[in-house]
Amino acid sequence: MDGEGAIFDAGALTAISIAFGLTISVLAYGIGHISGGHINPAVTLSFMVLRLKSITAGLLYMLAQFAGATLGAFILWGCTASLTEHCDDERDSDGNLPGDINGVCSSSAKADGSGYGPPFSLGVNMVAPRVSTGSAFLIEMMGTFLLVFTVLQVAVHNKSTAGNVAPIAIGWAVLVAHLVLIPFTGCGINPARSFGPMIVDTIGGMDVWVRGCWVFYTAPFIGSTVAALTYKFIFCEEEDVKDA
Amino acid sequence: MDGEGAIFDAGALTAISIAFGLTISVLAYGIGHISGGHINPAVTLSFMVLRLKSITAGLLYMLAQFAGATLGAFILWGCTASLTEHCDDERDSDGNLPGDINGVCSSSAKADGSGYGPPFSLGVNMVAPRVSTGSAFLIEMMGTFLLVFTVLQVAVHNKSTAGNVAPIAIGWAVLVAHLVLIPFTGCGINPARSFGPMIVDTIGGMDVWVRGCWVFYTAPFIGSTVAALTYKFIFCEEEDVKDA
Amino acid sequence: MDGEGAIFDAGALTAISIAFGLTISVLAYGIGHISGGHINPAVTLSFMVLRLKSITAGLLYMLAQFAGATLGAFILWGCTASLTEHCDDERDSDGNLPGDINGVCSSSAKADGSGYGPPFSLGVNMVAPRVSTGSAFLIEMMGTFLLVFTVLQVAVHNKSTAGNVAPIAIGWAVLVAHLVLIPFTGCGINPARSFGPMIVDTIGGMDVWVRGCWVFYTAPFIGSTVAALTYKFIFCEEEDVKDA
Amino acid sequence: MDGEGAIFDAGALTAISIAFGLTISVLAYGIGHISGGHINPAVTLSFMVLRLKSITAGLLYMLAQFAGATLGAFILWGCTASLTEHCDDERDSDGNLPGDINGVCSSSAKADGSGYGPPFSLGVNMVAPRVSTGSAFLIEMMGTFLLVFTVLQVAVHNKSTAGNVAPIAIGWAVLVAHLVLIPFTGCGINPARSFGPMIVDTIGGMDVWVRGCWVFYTAPFIGSTVAALTYKFIFCEEEDVKDA
Ligand SMILES: [Ca+2]
Ligand SMILES: [Ca+2]
Ligand SMILES: [Ca+2]
Ligand SMILES: [Ca+2]
Repeated sequence: MDGEGAIFDAGALTAISIAFGLTISVLAYGIGHISGGHINPAVTLSFMVLRLKSITAGLLYMLAQFAGATLGAFILWGCTASLTEHCDDERDSDGNLPGDINGVCSSSAKADGSGYGPPFSLGVNMVAPRVSTGSAFLIEMMGTFLLVFTVLQVAVHNKSTAGNVAPIAIGWAVLVAHLVLIPFTGCGINPARSFGPMIVDTIGGMDVWVRGCWVFYTAPFIGSTVAALTYKFIFCEEEDVKDA
Repeated sequence: MDGEGAIFDAGALTAISIAFGLTISVLAYGIGHISGGHINPAVTLSFMVLRLKSITAGLLYMLAQFAGATLGAFILWGCTASLTEHCDDERDSDGNLPGDINGVCSSSAKADGSGYGPPFSLGVNMVAPRVSTGSAFLIEMMGTFLLVFTVLQVAVHNKSTAGNVAPIAIGWAVLVAHLVLIPFTGCGINPARSFGPMIVDTIGGMDVWVRGCWVFYTAPFIGSTVAALTYKFIFCEEEDVKDA
Repeated sequence: MDGEGAIFDAGALTAISIAFGLTISVLAYGIGHISGGHINPAVTLSFMVLRLKSITAGLLYMLAQFAGATLGAFILWGCTASLTEHCDDERDSDGNLPGDINGVCSSSAKADGSGYGPPFSLGVNMVAPRVSTGSAFLIEMMGTFLLVFTVLQVAVHNKSTAGNVAPIAIGWAVLVAHLVLIPFTGCGINPARSFGPMIVDTIGGMDVWVRGCWVFYTAPFIGSTVAALTYKFIFCEEEDVKDA
Repeated sequence: MDGEGAIFDAGALTAISIAFGLTISVLAYGIGHISGGHINPAVTLSFMVLRLKSITAGLLYMLAQFAGATLGAFILWGCTASLTEHCDDERDSDGNLPGDINGVCSSSAKADGSGYGPPFSLGVNMVAPRVSTGSAFLIEMMGTFLLVFTVLQVAVHNKSTAGNVAPIAIGWAVLVAHLVLIPFTGCGINPARSFGPMIVDTIGGMDVWVRGCWVFYTAPFIGSTVAALTYKFIFCEEEDVKDA
């Protein structure tokens, strides 16, 4: 509790978590009235489980989500590619780099040593070195459960009192999930968000088949299904799901 | 005011406070329409004092709160247990550990020296070394007063104008209480939140009977009762409490 | 822009600003429906200028504000007094203190050298060493203008669309004022908030008659009056002020 | 992801981003009901493209925006000018300055070496040294697209569900744009915000014709136009634009 045992820089943790969480709120306000605001395959799966969305519609949504995340990762690469431009031409006689670009260079070196791929691996999710894949799986499942539980209660339940503030509650669920999960997994809880950077990193020559990368495509779907079933059998009144 | 005299890392303080505060808002939106959103025995006590909840119902709620907090602490242990896996096998010849796990190892060593318990003591509350238990008691009472006062005014008072934003006000009361109290006590203001990690730490072999641990099971209840009585005799109109 | 030229620790700046800003929102939700939520003499003055509050009522409000701030500063002293307990008994043979209490001890030494007063001077406002009192005056005036302008537009103007979110807008105005003003003056913009710690510091033996301390009792009232007159002659429709 | 590769101090990044984002929310609540809350020429352009505002009105708005930003930059200079007062009289025999003012002095030296101009260049936007102007252009375009897209969906679209929370969504769009763009360009996404400090810096003797400064007067307008056309042809129903 006193910062000494920190395994992650708290300032970066806060900045990244706020960025992810508030972006979800902004996008939910921005496209919620157009499409329902589905940008996460795990959330869409919970709607399919509850029969709030058909199998076909759900799969098409997921296709769009994975495609959009991949497009976004490409655009991010375009925005950031110049960060590694000076990685080779500024080495001193010992081969060392100035401090301000040393980090981005070492984290962006291609697996085959032939140069530099997408900077910072485009923020791809990975299980932290000292975290077991079992723990990673559990915590990704819990984070997704929190998100999907919140979505269903504030935006679907017929007694929800959130009204026009529902996207804030959903964004904050994502924000706190990131504060907790980032030191462990970078915080996936959205298979499309994990997928986009991984694909573009692969194209860019990075080594993406890291330990535990499968966690991000399984745990969120399971956490989401558990949240949907919990909602259906414990919290929701019969007519809820039918009417939604 | 200039950061030099800091007794706590400000970045960690902000990250932890945001996590606690916004989680309260999210949970209030998530279960407020199901159960009233009671997740704090001190808050529930204030409802009992004001006869907004019966003794029996209140005690059952508290039972669920303590049980839920304990379950949550167990899950957190499962999510984090792997952090101490390398505490013994990476020591160098002098017995020193790499910096990135030194903190978690030293803060997670069992009292009897037989290994490692729950990492970071699962964030259990404790009175900071240089803070007197008297000050700790006073500040925990004040923090709980702020929380319960806010809950009663925004979610019970019949002239409240908070409407569907009430959970944001309540979550922010918790957030600012954490910003102020964390350097002194880690911020309890919720006996269930203090209880869960303490029980699981005990099971995990940690030494939990630290100086002043009784503060977290007394001060919040007293602060809550004072807030309820203040509300009843100063702020609330007669019919308020009757009708609620 | 790159942090190198920082004259204030950004992490502490954020933590303190969030604490002040969100507390204003919480208190506005907590007592707005009781008293109008007046906790700042500068804001109350603007209501007097616009004849939304009588001279007598306004002065009584101010009396309560200064008294409440003083009481609060006393309670804060009680909560924090133990921080300086070890300032004398832990000095090493060279008279040096351990790092974790060095800051609080040096910042809490009494003016007459007879011991320690309120820790961290209870966060009293003061003009930063390298800032002129003229700049301090201007920036305190601007910060208060922003606050009072926001209060009048969101909570008084009859075309305001803020509704039940008005206290959030007001709290955020306070939050951003703190982010900007803290490195210069600690951010007053509320003469009662400046007064309470100064009085208790005086009682505690601290030297409070620091350079420019008069700024905190003049600039906010002037900024507030300018905001009220701007509101009256530029933004508000005639019937507004009459009806409010 | 672990802070090691950081090219920007995360604490300063968060503080600056919160300041910009929440200020936009506060101002939108403060003047939205007076003028529509237009303080960004790029946003105003999107209203002109959608014929929600006439060419004449739009150009007058822009004139006011550039003038207001310039006035604001002058006031900021007045508030901060004293920061460089001691830049020359505190040098030691080697010409070095105390650490706490070294940053502001070096960043505020006039181009002609004749003294000091506006401190910290008043936060003028500039493309970071290791970022290509092409990347800067793309990222400024994306950031403005996010902002204008959000404005149109939450405050113009006739099915928007944001209601009285729309200014929060807009402010958070600005906040997250700053979190992402600051390390690259300081985050413009508003030509008036870029213009004011640049003009006052010029008057103050700073060198403002830095590499890529034209990006801030082109990319936002293009991003805004793309957002407006996307809105018109993809998201909006015919009667929307007509009626607004
Ligand atoms: Ca591999
Ligand atoms: Ca013990
Ligand atoms: Ca003096
Ligand atoms: Ca030049």
